[in-house]
Amino acid sequence: MAAWLMAVCIRGMTAAETLALTQAMVRSGEVLDLSAIPGIKVDKHSTGGVGDKVTLIAAPLAAACGVKVPKLSGRALAHTGGTLDKLESVPGLTVDLEPERFLKQVQDVGIAVASQSPRIVPADKVLYALRDVTATVPSIPLIASSVMSKKIAAGADAIVLDVKFGRGAFMPDVASAEELAREMVTLGEGAGRRTVALVTAMDNPLGRTVGNALEVQEALDALVGEGDEELLEVSLRVTREMCVLAGVEADPDKVLRSGAGRQTFERMLAAQGGHLEQGLPVAPVKATISAERDGFVEGIDALEIGLSGAEIGVGRIRKEDRVDPAAGFVLVAQVGARVRKGDALVVIHARSQQLVDGVADRVRNAWRIVDHEVRRPPHVLARVDKNGVMGAD
Amino acid sequence: MAAWLMAVCIRGMTAAETLALTQAMVRSGEVLDLSAIPGIKVDKHSTGGVGDKVTLIAAPLAAACGVKVPKLSGRALAHTGGTLDKLESVPGLTVDLEPERFLKQVQDVGIAVASQSPRIVPADKVLYALRDVTATVPSIPLIASSVMSKKIAAGADAIVLDVKFGRGAFMPDVASAEELAREMVTLGEGAGRRTVALVTAMDNPLGRTVGNALEVQEALDALVGEGDEELLEVSLRVTREMCVLAGVEADPDKVLRSGAGRQTFERMLAAQGGHLEQGLPVAPVKATISAERDGFVEGIDALEIGLSGAEIGVGRIRKEDRVDPAAGFVLVAQVGARVRKGDALVVIHARSQQLVDGVADRVRNAWRIVDHEVRRPPHVLARVDKNGVMGAD
Repeated sequence: MAAWLMAVCIRGMTAAETLALTQAMVRSGEVLDLSAIPGIKVDKHSTGGVGDKVTLIAAPLAAACGVKVPKLSGRALAHTGGTLDKLESVPGLTVDLEPERFLKQVQDVGIAVASQSPRIVPADKVLYALRDVTATVPSIPLIASSVMSKKIAAGADAIVLDVKFGRGAFMPDVASAEELAREMVTLGEGAGRRTVALVTAMDNPLGRTVGNALEVQEALDALVGEGDEELLEVSLRVTREMCVLAGVEADPDKVLRSGAGRQTFERMLAAQGGHLEQGLPVAPVKATISAERDGFVEGIDALEIGLSGAEIGVGRIRKEDRVDPAAGFVLVAQVGARVRKGDALVVIHARSQQLVDGVADRVRNAWRIVDHEVRRPPHVLARVDKNGVMGAD
Repeated sequence: MAAWLMAVCIRGMTAAETLALTQAMVRSGEVLDLSAIPGIKVDKHSTGGVGDKVTLIAAPLAAACGVKVPKLSGRALAHTGGTLDKLESVPGLTVDLEPERFLKQVQDVGIAVASQSPRIVPADKVLYALRDVTATVPSIPLIASSVMSKKIAAGADAIVLDVKFGRGAFMPDVASAEELAREMVTLGEGAGRRTVALVTAMDNPLGRTVGNALEVQEALDALVGEGDEELLEVSLRVTREMCVLAGVEADPDKVLRSGAGRQTFERMLAAQGGHLEQGLPVAPVKATISAERDGFVEGIDALEIGLSGAEIGVGRIRKEDRVDPAAGFVLVAQVGARVRKGDALVVIHARSQQLVDGVADRVRNAWRIVDHEVRRPPHVLARVDKNGVMGAD
């Protein structure tokens, strides 16, 4: 299998071969039966980024619009965050939902976010472990089949994908992200699932925070329309795609402004045992990192922020590491911001001063400050559906 | 390692990488120290063919010319024969020579042919087993490093390679055989061994017999100048290359005619415990296969003959199979011969009529008989040394 993975990594696979692999992977385990939930169920998946809390915003908002959102999710991996880790920063919350409870919550609340059962696509775990030790992770057909087999086995009728590229993503550039998006859409449609993918930039962290509890709070704020414009824009964009696939005619902007998305999110957290009223965890140490010169923020290296995050407990360096729910970064100076020497760039939230000291230089150096004014780059670069790739708008 | 083998199989390796692999393979085990034998020691290796008894002729002849020939050899593999199996058809003969006995025999007789110790390049066995199950056998750098690591570890100062191509060889065409030859010469020279390769055709079996005892008898005859012209020609050619590398000025043709090569071969067989005077084993069943039409023999499919041979015990279908020393084929109608319907094409020597019946059609169909006259094709196609590839003559 190791030799075969390398052959695929180097030579690629045809669309038919990739679909056959994906379907074989699906058949290696259980396929969720969501037929008890009436209507079109829509899943949402991101290929992983830094500060990517779009699921925490778009999924409850879509549910508030009337979409049924049964979502299985993953944990932090390498420099990227994981939705499950973020949700678990809410006191008492569990992501281990038995199938019956999961289905009932989707019916009652409109949304449930749970950890994937090991009985879903067990072949993926075996393949991934082998890919990890054979340098065959960066293969578009292998990535696409891994993601899509799990999405297909998770049972939703339609899938919205957020395929990220750039410094903080697994795809290095927009071309490879589009190729991955096309491949995943082809696999989803080939398995009878309506599938749409957005290709989005991940050179800079998304939104104003990176961290588990910090991102939950940012999502709560975004769900009442407060916060980073780009984050709101991409979240609404994803929500609209979910609504279209579900055949739901609600206006996500209006629903956002009504606060119904926030209510749905809070109901979901409560249904999963979360006690928001107890407050989200707060880090004992908050250290401000300041600009060393005047200028404009041209970029914030998402990979460096992600890797620094893993050092202080936002994510995991080793699979068995425990995350620190309170750790993270509040990005004060965003891309495009004008800063003066001494202005705060970022506040590091950590368990100890030692952890702060370990990453302070790396975090400071993630900010690229230039003399000329900077415009924030576009975030959504393309949209891919069964008809092909289209520009973003 | 399986993944790496596939990467090498698809992408190839640079000359420096292949040399580094080869040297690492050499270091995985023992390197024979032949310094006790004075002068330049010359090894000879064939990449494997059907009816290829050149070693049995050229190596004793070179020894009779004054070359020291310490040769480690292999067994029958797939459709190709093995020198060790051929020698073991001589009653009493052993190829398991302890290092001291091996060295002494090379000094006394000029030549010893022994089985390779498992302590020589143990990495090759591991790599080959993996290549076998990962479809990565047909890779020129992997083949070259496998052969040359063993030749280098076997300790000779110079090496003459016979790189075969065609139906009965592992290389399909002259271009790939030349590439393999170049790669092996580069590795040998890179490890400080003078190396020359001949690129020879293996579309048709070589000589007039295929089989263990049958080929030993054919070699004995050739060593007094009797037998197939092509076989004599290529054997003399190999001997000349060995003499040149050893700096020996003898004339192999003259030595052949003197019978000294035959004497050296007989002394070698005796030194290894062989009792030629007891006679070579003879098969109980001899069945003649006849031509079904008039015409000229255009070709004899070496692969079909080799595979049929494995069926009747010339070689092995599975590694653990035992060979039948007496089994084989006497090729009566050679390429270029005119035949009439009913003329003998070949005599099958086998343990039972059942074995004959099992291969008779396949053996008959190996003869391609056409209406027009046929010229025998050239046998030695090219010569490769450190200066590059040259035409044969």
